[in-house]
Amino acid sequence: MIEVIKTKHIGFCFGVKRAVSAVLREAGRSKEKIYTLGPLLHNPQMVEILKENGVEAVDDVSSVGSGLVAFRSHGIRKDEEEEIRAKGLRFIDTTCPFVKRVRRHALYLRRNGYRVVIAGDRTHPEVKSVLSYLDDDGMVFHSSFPIEAKKIGVVSQTTLDQETFSDVVRALAAGAVELRVYNTICESTNIRRREAVELAGVTEAMLIVGGKNSSNTTKLFQTVKGIQPRTYHIETEDEIREEWFAGVHKVGIAGGASTPDTIIDRVERRVNNL
Amino acid sequence: MIEVIKTKHIGFCFGVKRAVSAVLREAGRSKEKIYTLGPLLHNPQMVEILKENGVEAVDDVSSVGSGLVAFRSHGIRKDEEEEIRAKGLRFIDTTCPFVKRVRRHALYLRRNGYRVVIAGDRTHPEVKSVLSYLDDDGMVFHSSFPIEAKKIGVVSQTTLDQETFSDVVRALAAGAVELRVYNTICESTNIRRREAVELAGVTEAMLIVGGKNSSNTTKLFQTVKGIQPRTYHIETEDEIREEWFAGVHKVGIAGGASTPDTIIDRVERRVNNL
Repeated sequence: MIEVIKTKHIGFCFGVKRAVSAVLREAGRSKEKIYTLGPLLHNPQMVEILKENGVEAVDDVSSVGSGLVAFRSHGIRKDEEEEIRAKGLRFIDTTCPFVKRVRRHALYLRRNGYRVVIAGDRTHPEVKSVLSYLDDDGMVFHSSFPIEAKKIGVVSQTTLDQETFSDVVRALAAGAVELRVYNTICESTNIRRREAVELAGVTEAMLIVGGKNSSNTTKLFQTVKGIQPRTYHIETEDEIREEWFAGVHKVGIAGGASTPDTIIDRVERRVNNL
Repeated sequence: MIEVIKTKHIGFCFGVKRAVSAVLREAGRSKEKIYTLGPLLHNPQMVEILKENGVEAVDDVSSVGSGLVAFRSHGIRKDEEEEIRAKGLRFIDTTCPFVKRVRRHALYLRRNGYRVVIAGDRTHPEVKSVLSYLDDDGMVFHSSFPIEAKKIGVVSQTTLDQETFSDVVRALAAGAVELRVYNTICESTNIRRREAVELAGVTEAMLIVGGKNSSNTTKLFQTVKGIQPRTYHIETEDEIREEWFAGVHKVGIAGGASTPDTIIDRVERRVNNL
């Protein structure tokens, strides 16, 4: 029989739990339809469950005429927030507080004359959100890129890996007279990565469970795969293939910040029954 | 005949020129003996010339009873300044303004609750000086060393190489919530290093001229030696050996920030006459 070991920190992170609870609470007591701008979280299975509870993801505020709007946990764009307010729509701000901290630091830096650099992925909704609140007056770097400026201020996407962040900071240290850096990688991201790496060291195969569209899950997968070649990224237990575990006695399970406990449990059970 | 090419920026840097001029001016008009605390600059030949002009380097303030005290260009220690003032000695502050900037930024960071890190060499008088004005409440790092602190502030020794500085900053970016960095490497150090590296690329041998006890000259030598194995660190023309230039048609000359023009000229002439 295969022994299954899970990381200590698994299931929703603080920000995702907070957003999902708030939306489900509203869904339970409200007769109105609830809309989220983009998926509330990057987990297709959970987004499906929300839909069954009357919570629908839409791409565009303009398609919402009435009802309640919930902000996605990664934050929405400034113009979206303005449109929601202008339309007089009821809303609940379910933006992760740690994402708001990124925004707050970025705005503080800009107000104080720093050229703002966001270390992260410019296609990720969180980065798009922060950038929009800077009125797009910011740069996004995902690798070493030196720029010259008297004052450079840096924040990081909450789900960025520490190595990339450090590389970005290193490159900027050369061209700035003053460099001010807020390390806004969230603690949950760091802890999960550390625990997953440690678990990979004592197991023979690893399962990383979470949305394929989830930034933190994908980075977790890449990090662990670099240590343990027998690492597989799955969204649900149905993707598990028996041949992955030929000759394997110990399997580790780690999950992204937007992976619900229920899916982790089902994955664990499936491996136990192989 | 050997062609000799010099870097554009050669001879005393701004801070050294300023210190030497001030001291020689005083020596010309004063009947008093002039003392410097430690050598005024890290060039033994120039220190000898100063001595001939009545400017003597002493190790300790306590040995000075009267006369005029000149601060060394790298800065003196806080307790030395206090002793000079307490004794009522006349003094001229010939500390390099760029070194004072390091001190000013370090004190500002400490006052604002940052854990202060000086990127540099803890045995160098400049670093000792800055650290003393922090009441020794600072750390000195010369390589990647992560520490954990809410707020970390960084300054650099003026003559540090950019790569080491960037490595120090990179390591600190991981453990700080806020990292505030003042890149206080002086422009002269950067320019000289860049020009020397470029010159090494178009010559067949390089001479780095300057004090063996000079930090910036030694680092310049190490950097250039890494690119051009036929690189030699000399203090004067008398150290030049003909066999260094067997089959060589082009020789480059670069100097430290404390190397006087007169020595550069003599080195150039000697190579021309080989």
